[in-house]
Amino acid sequence: MGRQDWTVISAEEVYRNDKGLIVNREKVLLPDGRTIPHFYQVQMPSHVTVYATTRDGMVACLRQYKHGPRKVSLTLPGGLIDAGEDPAEAAKRELLEETGLSSNEWARLGSFTLGGNQGIATAHLFSAACAEEVRAPDSGDLEEMALEFLSPERVLAEVRSGNFPIIGHVAAIALANLRD
Amino acid sequence: MGRQDWTVISAEEVYRNDKGLIVNREKVLLPDGRTIPHFYQVQMPSHVTVYATTRDGMVACLRQYKHGPRKVSLTLPGGLIDAGEDPAEAAKRELLEETGLSSNEWARLGSFTLGGNQGIATAHLFSAACAEEVRAPDSGDLEEMALEFLSPERVLAEVRSGNFPIIGHVAAIALANLRD
Repeated sequence: MGRQDWTVISAEEVYRNDKGLIVNREKVLLPDGRTIPHFYQVQMPSHVTVYATTRDGMVACLRQYKHGPRKVSLTLPGGLIDAGEDPAEAAKRELLEETGLSSNEWARLGSFTLGGNQGIATAHLFSAACAEEVRAPDSGDLEEMALEFLSPERVLAEVRSGNFPIIGHVAAIALANLRD
Repeated sequence: MGRQDWTVISAEEVYRNDKGLIVNREKVLLPDGRTIPHFYQVQMPSHVTVYATTRDGMVACLRQYKHGPRKVSLTLPGGLIDAGEDPAEAAKRELLEETGLSSNEWARLGSFTLGGNQGIATAHLFSAACAEEVRAPDSGDLEEMALEFLSPERVLAEVRSGNFPIIGHVAAIALANLRD
């Protein structure tokens, strides 16, 4: 195979709202010479997700209604990265806000694109071991959430039962458990 | 905790394009009585991703430029579900189109929401074992793609190196390898 990158000939913003959602319509040149007049790119704020375990190996999970999957869900701590914030700092901040936990043993599980074609956002996945409670949770989020500490085996069983509906959380859980 | 579901009071479509991307602006009532006037939901077509292994345990991977992450990427076979198509049928069709492989040993790895807050799309993840070549690949996609058969260990190493940039592919790879 020769050169594969696509060339963006022009881009036009066709939608933007006050929550950081932007839709761009691009005109794209393919390596074989074809031109695609309308290839859409979606931009949303990037976020962090944290697989945090306590000293005794339990996983910090949140049970809350999520409007994306439209059901009460098991989730991992995480949230949007603030403007100018480093993803690793956002991960520490979100873990503390949502669970009251702090850790000195952080690892990166990887940063991944949500949409293979449209981009959408980057999910930065982290693990944090030996997390300890340093304050009460205070997420400031719209969701009413309950902190639950589940064993890794229980977490994997809940993933298989469909009770962790959000794909980035499942990726973090599976990657963290592959590393053990 | 009491009742947690949010109630959608009204919804207004604020953007739609010819590729199935829809943005809805909802007015939402929270369980604590607060009203959120602008909560955005994004709808994009749902898709399938397939972790397919051959009789000798090699994983069918595609190397191709992806415009979402904007780089030449390792990916798994998959694609959009056609109108009215069952996700399991779409998985068989996409595997055949993109790799020429067919399998009689399918399993569901799960169906997950891309966006915890905005919904966006559902990724249906499958595994297929003992896949055999039954024809030449012919994806019909815009991307020029090369089929490569990698060992599971190599696939996991490539995930850790960031060479599988798309989160749904990583989730499928990690889930499939947890099951082994």
